[in-house]
Amino acid sequence: MNKPLLASLALLPAALCQIQAADTDKRPNIILFMVDDMGWQDTSLPFWTEKTHYNEAYETPNMERLAKQGVMFTQAYASSVSSPTRCSLFTGANAARHRVTNWTLQKNTSTDRPDDKLTPPDWNVNGISQVGGTSHTFVGTSFVQLLKNSGYHTIHCGKGHFGAIDTPGESPNHFGFDVNISGHAAGGLASYLGEENYGHTKDGKPTSLMSVPGLEKYWGTDTFVTEALTLETLQALDKAKKYNQPYFLYMAHYAIHIPIDKDMRYYQKYIDKGLTSKEAAYATLIEGMDKSLGDLMDWVEKSGEADNTVIIFMSDNGGLATQAHWRDGDLFTQNYPLNSGKGSLYEGGIREPMIVSWPGKAKADTRCDAPVIIEDFYPTILEMAGIDKYRTPQTIDGVSFMPLFGGKGKFDMNRTLIWNMPNNWGNDGPGINFNCAIRKGDWKLVYYYGTGKKELFNIKQDIGEANDLAQQHTDIVKRLSKELGKQLRKMDGQRPSFKETGLPCPWPDEV
Amino acid sequence: MNKPLLASLALLPAALCQIQAADTDKRPNIILFMVDDMGWQDTSLPFWTEKTHYNEAYETPNMERLAKQGVMFTQAYASSVSSPTRCSLFTGANAARHRVTNWTLQKNTSTDRPDDKLTPPDWNVNGISQVGGTSHTFVGTSFVQLLKNSGYHTIHCGKGHFGAIDTPGESPNHFGFDVNISGHAAGGLASYLGEENYGHTKDGKPTSLMSVPGLEKYWGTDTFVTEALTLETLQALDKAKKYNQPYFLYMAHYAIHIPIDKDMRYYQKYIDKGLTSKEAAYATLIEGMDKSLGDLMDWVEKSGEADNTVIIFMSDNGGLATQAHWRDGDLFTQNYPLNSGKGSLYEGGIREPMIVSWPGKAKADTRCDAPVIIEDFYPTILEMAGIDKYRTPQTIDGVSFMPLFGGKGKFDMNRTLIWNMPNNWGNDGPGINFNCAIRKGDWKLVYYYGTGKKELFNIKQDIGEANDLAQQHTDIVKRLSKELGKQLRKMDGQRPSFKETGLPCPWPDEV
Repeated sequence: MNKPLLASLALLPAALCQIQAADTDKRPNIILFMVDDMGWQDTSLPFWTEKTHYNEAYETPNMERLAKQGVMFTQAYASSVSSPTRCSLFTGANAARHRVTNWTLQKNTSTDRPDDKLTPPDWNVNGISQVGGTSHTFVGTSFVQLLKNSGYHTIHCGKGHFGAIDTPGESPNHFGFDVNISGHAAGGLASYLGEENYGHTKDGKPTSLMSVPGLEKYWGTDTFVTEALTLETLQALDKAKKYNQPYFLYMAHYAIHIPIDKDMRYYQKYIDKGLTSKEAAYATLIEGMDKSLGDLMDWVEKSGEADNTVIIFMSDNGGLATQAHWRDGDLFTQNYPLNSGKGSLYEGGIREPMIVSWPGKAKADTRCDAPVIIEDFYPTILEMAGIDKYRTPQTIDGVSFMPLFGGKGKFDMNRTLIWNMPNNWGNDGPGINFNCAIRKGDWKLVYYYGTGKKELFNIKQDIGEANDLAQQHTDIVKRLSKELGKQLRKMDGQRPSFKETGLPCPWPDEV
Repeated sequence: MNKPLLASLALLPAALCQIQAADTDKRPNIILFMVDDMGWQDTSLPFWTEKTHYNEAYETPNMERLAKQGVMFTQAYASSVSSPTRCSLFTGANAARHRVTNWTLQKNTSTDRPDDKLTPPDWNVNGISQVGGTSHTFVGTSFVQLLKNSGYHTIHCGKGHFGAIDTPGESPNHFGFDVNISGHAAGGLASYLGEENYGHTKDGKPTSLMSVPGLEKYWGTDTFVTEALTLETLQALDKAKKYNQPYFLYMAHYAIHIPIDKDMRYYQKYIDKGLTSKEAAYATLIEGMDKSLGDLMDWVEKSGEADNTVIIFMSDNGGLATQAHWRDGDLFTQNYPLNSGKGSLYEGGIREPMIVSWPGKAKADTRCDAPVIIEDFYPTILEMAGIDKYRTPQTIDGVSFMPLFGGKGKFDMNRTLIWNMPNNWGNDGPGINFNCAIRKGDWKLVYYYGTGKKELFNIKQDIGEANDLAQQHTDIVKRLSKELGKQLRKMDGQRPSFKETGLPCPWPDEV
C-alpha cells in the first residue's frame, strides 16, 4: 500500500521557521542516587575513621570520585528495611508516624513472620499514597509531586516500593513522577539477568511478583539489569535536557538486593582477589552500581550543567547479614565495624553511605559528622529547589540539612533521632525485630517491646555496639526512654501486643 | 542458581491479615472517547434530521447503543484540525487564544504549507505545556491535572498530540495522566497493522515520526492498533477499579486517521455491501473503533458502576475529504450533507458526532441541539467531577454545559462560537485555510483573511452551506464581523500578513 503522506512525514521538509528557545529555569537539577540494601562498608570509600577489609575488597571508584567533589556524611541514617525508609523519604514522616514499619508487597496483606509471643500492630501494610480511599495506607504528598508542581521534570528509575500491588501507591507515576522506568510495587527483583528476561518466561510471563517490568528490549541479551536501567536513564536525561526545565532524577537501583547474581563484567576480578564465589558476586553488584553512578556523572559533566546539579548518594538500609544462603563469613559481621545488618536497629542495619555533591554549596572533598536521617531528605531537597512554602496533608518530621550547605538557620548537631520497628521482619539476629531506638548525641538506646530489655551504647566510643552500658548509666537510660516514649506517642506510633494477654507491650518509658 | 527466598515470594503464603477496604469515592467515573478525523456522518447513527447514505453504509452498533442510553448532541463543534482541538480540550481556551492554530509535530517547526500571498502568524508551533520554559507554547493547566489533583485516577490511551517532539508537551504524563498508553507528540500513526509493528522495523526502529510507541507485545500479530489499544485500556481499567478512586479515561483512538489500512475483521463485509476498496477500508476503521466503544461499555456494565459512569463520545475534526489518494467519490462530499471536511471552517470540517451518556443525569435516548464546542469540555468535565473552584494560569473560554444535565445555571442556546485558522493547513478546498468564522444562532459568517471575502450562511436552513447570503443580509454580515473581530482581538488572536507588503491582513470588522 502506498502511503505518500506518511512517507513525506518520515522525511519532513526543512523547518519553515526555526524559533529561539525561551530562557532556561536556573534552579538546580537534582539526582538522588539510591542504592538498595547497601551497607556502610560496601564500598572502597571509607566512611569510618579506618579503612576496613571491606573497603579493600570492593571497588567503587565513582563513589570516590563523587566524594572528592562533595561531602561524605558519616552518620547518615535510614530505617532498617526498605519500605519504612522509602515511605519516610517520600513523605518526610518518620516511620513511627507513617506506620509502614515493615516491607509491603501484596494488598491488605502483612508480611510479618508469625511470632510465638507477640502480635504486630495493625500497621499500614498497603504503604503510602497521595490519595485516600485505600485502608492501611498513609496518605501524604510526596516531595516529588511538589517539585513537579513547581516546574521540575521528574524521572523515576528502578525500584519503587511505595505501596502494595493493586493500590494507588504501586505506581511511581502516582507520586509526581513524569517518567517511570521499571518501578512498581515490589521491593526486590526476580533476576538481574537479561538472559533470564529479568524474571520473565520466554512468552513474557512474569515468574514472580518481583519480575522487573519494562525492560523488554534487553531481554535475551547479556545486559545486567543495573546497566539496562542506566541506559534507559541516560536516554531519559537526554530528553529532560531538551525541556528547559530543571529535572529531578530518582535513580533507585534494584542493586544490591538479593538475588546476588554475578555481574560477569567484574566477577573474575574479585575471584582473582581471593573472594569466595558468593562474596565475589556481591562485589560485582556493588561495582555495577558504581559504574552506573559514573555513567550518570559523566553525563552530567557533558550536559554543561555540572555546576548546577546536585548529586546525592544514599542507601535504604544496612547490608544483608542474616542469610547464609547469600553471604559468606560469620553472619552479622558483613557491615563491620558495625554490628548486624539489614533489619536491625543496630548501626549495621541503619547507618548508610551518604554523599552530597553540589558545586559551590557542598564543600568538596570533606566529611560531615552531622546526624541526618532519611526523612530529612524531603524538606532538604525542596529547599534545594527553592521551595519553602508548601502544604501537605502529612506532618513532616524531617529537618532540612540545608544549613550545612549555607542555607538559612542552624543545624542541631545534638538532635534526637528515633526508629520504630514493632514488627517481625522475617530473619533473626542482633537488634532485629520488635524494637525501637533513640539516638541523641553519642548515646543510643535500643528497647525491645517483648522483653522490656533496654540496651545503651555510646556510639562514638563503641560503634560496634558491643558494650551495653545500661547498668552503668541508668540516668541516661531513663532520660532516653522517656524521650523515646514521648516521641512515639506524639507521632501516634504503634507497638506490638502480647499474644497471651492481648495487652499492648509497654512503651519504653513504662518499664 | 537457587533462589529460595524468591521462590517463596512467587508462592506467597496465605494472607496473614486480610483487611477491609476503605470507602470508595462516589464521584462519577468519566470516559472521554475521542475519535480522530471522524466526520459527522461516519456512523450508522443519524445526527442529521435525515438518514444519509453514509449512515446506511457504515455500521456502528455501539454508538447506537450509547445514544439509546444518553443524549446525542447534533450541533457539537471542534476546530478543523487536530492540534487546535486537542489544545482547546485540554486547556479550555479557544484556539484564537492558545494560538496552536495548525498541527504540531517537530520542535520550533511550523507545519504550514508555503503560500504565495500570505505569511501565517508566529503561532504556537510547540503546542501546549503545563510548564513554561519553551518558546511558542501556550502554558496552561489541563483539566486532567485538576482531576488528578482532586483524587481521580487518570488514564490516557492512544493519540496525544498536545505538544511538539522534545518539548514537555510531548508526553501525556505531563498533563496529569497517571497512565499513558501509546501517546506521544505525533498526531497520526505510521500503521494500524501489528504485522507492520505499527511502524517499526523488525529491529524495533521506528520508520517515521508517527510510529506508534509502546505496543511491542502485539508486534508481529494480526492485532489492529485499535484493538491493541482497547486491550491495554481494559487492563488499565481493571487496575483502576482496584484503587478505590474515581477514574478518568481519555480513550483517544488513532482511528480513523490516515493511513486508511484495512481492518480485515470487517473488510469483506463492506466489499460485499458494494463499497469500493478505499471506502470499505475506511468503513473498517470506523467499525473497529465502534467495537472498541462496545468493549468499554461492556466493561463498564460489568464493573458494577455503570450508573455512576459518564461516557462522552466525540471526534476532533471533520472527516477527511480532500485527498483522492485516500478517499473515493467526489472530493469534499464525504461529510454530506455537510460541505467540505477536515481543515475547513464549513460544517464538514468542524461539526462532530457527540454523545453523552450519564445515567440519571443525561436523559436517555434524546437529542439536543445546543451549540457546544470543544473548549466547553474543560469546565463541564470538572463540574461533573464536582470541581468548581480552581485556578489556572490560562483563561478558560469554554462554558460548562452541565445546565443541560440538571446543573446550576442556564445554558445560552443563542451563544456565540468562534473559530480562527490563520494558517495554511496543507490541502485546498472549500472553506479551507487562512480564515476565521463565527456562529450565533442560525447564522454563520466565514471570513477569508487573504481576500477579505465574507460568506454568510443560515445553518438551520442550509446546513450544506451552499447559499451565501452575504449580499442579502449586509446588516447581519456587519454585526457578525464586528463581533468576530472583537472576540479575536479580545483573545489576542493572530492573523496572517500579506507577503507583498508585510502588513497584517485586516480583521473581519476592518473590511
